[in-house]
Amino acid sequence: MTSKAIQDYYPEPYAHCYGCGRLNEHGLQIKSYVQGDEVVAVFRPEPHHIAIPGFVYGGLIASLIDCHSIAAAAAAAHRARGSDIDRGPLLRFVTAALHVDFLRPTPLGATLQLQAHAKEVKGRKVVVDTMLSVDGKMCARGEVVAVEIPEGMQAREQAQ
Amino acid sequence: MTSKAIQDYYPEPYAHCYGCGRLNEHGLQIKSYVQGDEVVAVFRPEPHHIAIPGFVYGGLIASLIDCHSIAAAAAAAHRARGSDIDRGPLLRFVTAALHVDFLRPTPLGATLQLQAHAKEVKGRKVVVDTMLSVDGKMCARGEVVAVEIPEGMQAREQAQ
Repeated sequence: MTSKAIQDYYPEPYAHCYGCGRLNEHGLQIKSYVQGDEVVAVFRPEPHHIAIPGFVYGGLIASLIDCHSIAAAAAAAHRARGSDIDRGPLLRFVTAALHVDFLRPTPLGATLQLQAHAKEVKGRKVVVDTMLSVDGKMCARGEVVAVEIPEGMQAREQAQ
Repeated sequence: MTSKAIQDYYPEPYAHCYGCGRLNEHGLQIKSYVQGDEVVAVFRPEPHHIAIPGFVYGGLIASLIDCHSIAAAAAAAHRARGSDIDRGPLLRFVTAALHVDFLRPTPLGATLQLQAHAKEVKGRKVVVDTMLSVDGKMCARGEVVAVEIPEGMQAREQAQ
C-alpha cells in the first residue's frame, strides 16, 4: 500500500473538499491509498453519523463512496497514461453520476472498509466500482462515473 | 404547503438521522414539506460544504436527495393508504438504492431547492424522483428506492 494518500497529491485549490480535502478542517478527510490494482480506505464514523439507532447514515456512505471512487479514478487515469500519481500535478476528477445500493444496514461503532476498482478508463471518463464492508461483510456497493474536471469549473476556481 | 415538516412527525427513535433528524444537533436538519402532489425543501449549504472552490460538495447533494426522498416516500405511502401524515405514527422508510446524476456544478452561496415526486408506490416500496435546482436551473437529479423500515433494523433499535 502507498504510504501517502491519493488526496494528499491534489493541488491546493482542489484540497478543500468536504469529503476528502486535507485543508477542510470541518470535513471528513477521507484518505485513499493505492494497493495493487485497487484503492483502499478505512473510515470510522462518529456517533452523530447515525441513520436510525445502531446504523450508519446512508448519506455518509454515499459521500465516502463518492470521494474514494474519485481518488481511484485519478489513480487509474494516471496509470493509464503511464504516469505515477507522485509525479503530479494530480488529475482532478469530479462526479458525473453516483449510484449506491445499500445491501444491508451498516453498523455504527465499527470501522468501514472501502475497496475501489476502476472498471473503465476512456478519455476523460473513468467508471469506478466501490464496495463498502464491515468485518468482511459487504454493506453497500457503489458505482461512480468520474470525469476529469471540466474547464468551466476550473475557470470559476481561478476567477476567485 | 404544510406548516410542519414531514421529519417532525418521525417518532423519537427515528429522529436522530444526521441528514434530517430534528434531534441531531450536529446534523443537517433537512426539512421537507408536502406541497400538493410534491414534497419540497430548501437548504443553504455552509461554506465548508465545498467540493472545489465555488461549488457544492456532491456528497451533501446526495445526502439532501436521500433524506428528502425518504420523507417524500413516507408522505406518499401515507397518502396511498388513505391516511394523513399528521395522524401518526409516521411510517419510516430507509434507502435501498440511491442514484444521483450531477447535471451541472451546483454553486456554493445559493439556496438549493428540492422537489420530490413519488413515481411508484407498491407495498412497502416507494420510488421517488427528486430534482435539485438553484434559481430555476436544475443541477442534480436523483432517484431513491425507499423501503419501509425492515424488522431487523427495528429490532436492533429496540434492543438498545
